[in-house]
Amino acid sequence: MEGIDKYELLSDLAKRRGFFWPSFEIYGGTSGYLDLGPLGAKLKRRIEDKWLDLFVYRHGFVAISTPVITPEKVFVASGHIEHFKDLMVTCEECKRHFKADYVITEAMPGRADIAAEAMSPAEIDSFIAENHVRCPECGGKLGKSEYFSTMFKTNIGPYSDALGYGRPEAAQGIFVDFKRVYETSREKLPLGIAQIGTVMRNEISPRQGPIRLREFTIMEIECFFDPEERKCKYLNDVKNAVLPLYLSKTREQGSADLTQVTVQEAIERGFVLTEWSAYFMALSIQFANSLGIPPEKQRFEEKLPAERSHYSSQTFDHQIWLDRWGWVEIAGHAYRTDFDLSAHMKYSGVDLTIFKPHAATVTKKTTVIVPLEPVLGPLLREKAQAVLNALLSSKPEEVKAAFQKAGYFELQGFKILPSHLRFEERSIRETGRRFLPHVVEPSYGAERIVYSALEYSYNRVKDRVVLKLPVDLAPTQMMVFPLMAKNGLAELSAEIQEFLSGQGFEVEGDEGGTIGRRYARADEVGVPLSITVDYQTKENGTVTLRDRDTWQQVRNEWKAIPGLARQFFQRKLTFLELGTPVKVAYE
Amino acid sequence: MEGIDKYELLSDLAKRRGFFWPSFEIYGGTSGYLDLGPLGAKLKRRIEDKWLDLFVYRHGFVAISTPVITPEKVFVASGHIEHFKDLMVTCEECKRHFKADYVITEAMPGRADIAAEAMSPAEIDSFIAENHVRCPECGGKLGKSEYFSTMFKTNIGPYSDALGYGRPEAAQGIFVDFKRVYETSREKLPLGIAQIGTVMRNEISPRQGPIRLREFTIMEIECFFDPEERKCKYLNDVKNAVLPLYLSKTREQGSADLTQVTVQEAIERGFVLTEWSAYFMALSIQFANSLGIPPEKQRFEEKLPAERSHYSSQTFDHQIWLDRWGWVEIAGHAYRTDFDLSAHMKYSGVDLTIFKPHAATVTKKTTVIVPLEPVLGPLLREKAQAVLNALLSSKPEEVKAAFQKAGYFELQGFKILPSHLRFEERSIRETGRRFLPHVVEPSYGAERIVYSALEYSYNRVKDRVVLKLPVDLAPTQMMVFPLMAKNGLAELSAEIQEFLSGQGFEVEGDEGGTIGRRYARADEVGVPLSITVDYQTKENGTVTLRDRDTWQQVRNEWKAIPGLARQFFQRKLTFLELGTPVKVAYE
Repeated sequence: MEGIDKYELLSDLAKRRGFFWPSFEIYGGTSGYLDLGPLGAKLKRRIEDKWLDLFVYRHGFVAISTPVITPEKVFVASGHIEHFKDLMVTCEECKRHFKADYVITEAMPGRADIAAEAMSPAEIDSFIAENHVRCPECGGKLGKSEYFSTMFKTNIGPYSDALGYGRPEAAQGIFVDFKRVYETSREKLPLGIAQIGTVMRNEISPRQGPIRLREFTIMEIECFFDPEERKCKYLNDVKNAVLPLYLSKTREQGSADLTQVTVQEAIERGFVLTEWSAYFMALSIQFANSLGIPPEKQRFEEKLPAERSHYSSQTFDHQIWLDRWGWVEIAGHAYRTDFDLSAHMKYSGVDLTIFKPHAATVTKKTTVIVPLEPVLGPLLREKAQAVLNALLSSKPEEVKAAFQKAGYFELQGFKILPSHLRFEERSIRETGRRFLPHVVEPSYGAERIVYSALEYSYNRVKDRVVLKLPVDLAPTQMMVFPLMAKNGLAELSAEIQEFLSGQGFEVEGDEGGTIGRRYARADEVGVPLSITVDYQTKENGTVTLRDRDTWQQVRNEWKAIPGLARQFFQRKLTFLELGTPVKVAYE
Repeated sequence: MEGIDKYELLSDLAKRRGFFWPSFEIYGGTSGYLDLGPLGAKLKRRIEDKWLDLFVYRHGFVAISTPVITPEKVFVASGHIEHFKDLMVTCEECKRHFKADYVITEAMPGRADIAAEAMSPAEIDSFIAENHVRCPECGGKLGKSEYFSTMFKTNIGPYSDALGYGRPEAAQGIFVDFKRVYETSREKLPLGIAQIGTVMRNEISPRQGPIRLREFTIMEIECFFDPEERKCKYLNDVKNAVLPLYLSKTREQGSADLTQVTVQEAIERGFVLTEWSAYFMALSIQFANSLGIPPEKQRFEEKLPAERSHYSSQTFDHQIWLDRWGWVEIAGHAYRTDFDLSAHMKYSGVDLTIFKPHAATVTKKTTVIVPLEPVLGPLLREKAQAVLNALLSSKPEEVKAAFQKAGYFELQGFKILPSHLRFEERSIRETGRRFLPHVVEPSYGAERIVYSALEYSYNRVKDRVVLKLPVDLAPTQMMVFPLMAKNGLAELSAEIQEFLSGQGFEVEGDEGGTIGRRYARADEVGVPLSITVDYQTKENGTVTLRDRDTWQQVRNEWKAIPGLARQFFQRKLTFLELGTPVKVAYE
């Protein structure tokens, strides 16, 4: 198997047995798209359910569903129109397009010190010129770098100005719905709002199979909390868990060293800015462990300021090691502050703050904005109401700063001048306070996780492949075989299969070839338990159960299987507790 | 409540409690888009799971997942580029766009005899002129009708010729994958391949809330069977079920009469062309019944040839009656024959036929196509291989017919002339036969079904709303309340809530207001069981269980609830079997 990496081995298996394959194959394929076959789709749904249980429901958080195609104004407000783009270079000879940082990384193998992702267009261009970087496909001369918007653009309905984009993240659907979900959820903070759904990123030239997709399923939580009450009440459960941090300052020194600290230390020493992020990072490790990814193959890479998304004040990528691609991000943990809510409040003119009553009324001196409506109104015309509302909910200190810096404060395309308003110092009796919650976001790509779980479960034992998927993830839980297809064994086997299906298990049958071959086929797709129906079954109702991982066998009555197997799949019973050990007859 | 329809009542409830609301509300909304809130998203996932169990897994069928954005060539082959469009008219004054059939239907209320959907552009234009139909918004003059493609168009990557479309159905992803899934599924027919996923239809001017969406979740099965072995092995299970058919011939007579026949009769009398369609139609009724939609509110409308999709030889829409909109389609049952596989085989040049061995070798006379490669090869250049393959798998009788009719046979943009090939009669020893399977497709829109289940569960009892959702669909299964929040009852209540959650139930707590108000809040979102924790609970571990539908109450130990409730939610126990009846203290 020299020279063949796990990705190739797994891709072959995945196509043959139905986990995944490139989309639109009969038309030659379209890069960046992946189909999930029968087993892959089930595995993905199991991973989603596990994620919902671990991250969402057990905290009393909620999940919602919002559209993929999103009107332009939402992404103008969120900053995606301005920031969600990649630098592209085009070969002047073969006319192929490439992501600029890819071309540089490919040309400079092993140079971890070159942060190509953080380079400006000018830096890219001079790097390419100075280092004589050429087209990776044809060796031709590369043109100047330019920005390419990595959102899919389309038109909503027949009006040519109604632009829409395929969402690159599920988060904006959550932010625009925050207020409504907050109201339906008894107006309590912290509030986690999750979404599992399709997102689209129009990658320039994706060439990493299941790792860089133009369309994938995101699993995202926006966790909203009061910025003045930053405690995470679950922190105690994980405070001694170890976070392997690859800090930005270490990266800047060109070192690959990890800073291994407990969650508690990570917060005390200021490595992670919020308790909620640190908590979710600890859960993230638990999640990856439960998918079969060992802790030593995981780390959190802190993004450099230039690498971070425009909305984030701190981002850690949860990375795992994959055989072909090295360190790959499976999740991002971003501290989005009130960036998004604040932007949507400004652009929509809708008040997104929430109100929290004080224990007792307090009197406070404060600066308020008093718009001079007779001056402003006529200027704003039909947009007057929306802009005035947005102005009233702007922060006086921000408006003052804008006046100082630019001479005006821009709001919904209008330039508000100092002559349009006055600031007033007032004594205000406050019964509570209005504020925008801050947000911490853990965000996962489901297909990468499906792939990663498969890669880490891929084992070769003797001459065969055994997919040692965690038993609670296995798409098929049991196979039922008749020892031979005659003397009524096939019928009995079918009866047992139907009985187990009726009890809620994912069960399949297989009547082809020797028992040994059938075990091998079951191992190859990671079926934890294989059940053989033989002549004894007819006599005393017992069957053989065989363990995928140890190839050991036990015997028990088939009617006893549901209760025992349920506990086995929840890891409450070991295989040998499922019956009386017997000598292995076939393997 | 006069004049207010159920849609309005339900929309208010749905927003307030978190089932659904219009998307992008803070930006004024975008018609044709819907958000599902915490309860709506859970309800939808339950409906999807029920559908998977009923239609897919219990037949040994499989589910896969393919992308939303699909390259143009797939939809060229499938005929969608040519056929998936709507006739649109534009008001010359206000410039608004409308679906042409909508304008006519609105202008002619109660005229069921006008099949506006089936009209040609010329018919639309003269109907509008003759009947003086005006703009439904401003009364202005309407312009000539024109076609509008109702697929969302976009660009895949930075190459301007790489067009892609948001898929309007999940089916094409299944067809292009058919061969691969067939191979991973032990090469057996019938094979059902299902997909649940997002689809997009760029409606001209959708104005029916949750009923006409530009983006929704489709639940679709393509059931592939051998056209020479058309028996459906499950037919016997449903042969006496009654199908309420609204046949095309009845429609053409302007009558609203239903033809009520059993499944068996529907096949024998030729009303339904395939056993598989009739079987799925019977399942469809079972499915709708299980969502709480009474049989008398359901019918199957046979589409007129001009109303049918281009790929279908027969279509029945499963319609249900909704308060605001009348008869609305929740599913389509189409007999797609080998239309799609045949088209993809032709356009891709990949052989999609399957091979079935005969019991014994047979000798057969048959006509074969012999391409004259020296003539054709140079004409086809680099496409020679693909076109020759496609030609070899074309049907000789089709090629002959094309020669007769047009003088040439068109294949992948090339005109094949009679001089390019010859037909040869051969004696062939056949060990089996190659054929394209035929396909029957049941296809469901998940959001409409969520809405329909909610509408039929909406009840007013005394002064309150009770959402009588089928118990196995309820997003929240139980509420746990402390009688009062003091003397340790709140803590005990929280403990019981956590215990029940740990047993896999969807449980919530509610501590606000009187018990009566809490019952009312639970009724309003359809929680089947409410559990009250009181002083007796501290003494003897018993709680009160209260039934949403009858408001009856029983008492039992809280530790006994999981086993009993599981059976209650599977409808194996009635409410009164959950404990000892007690006098109702609060309601």
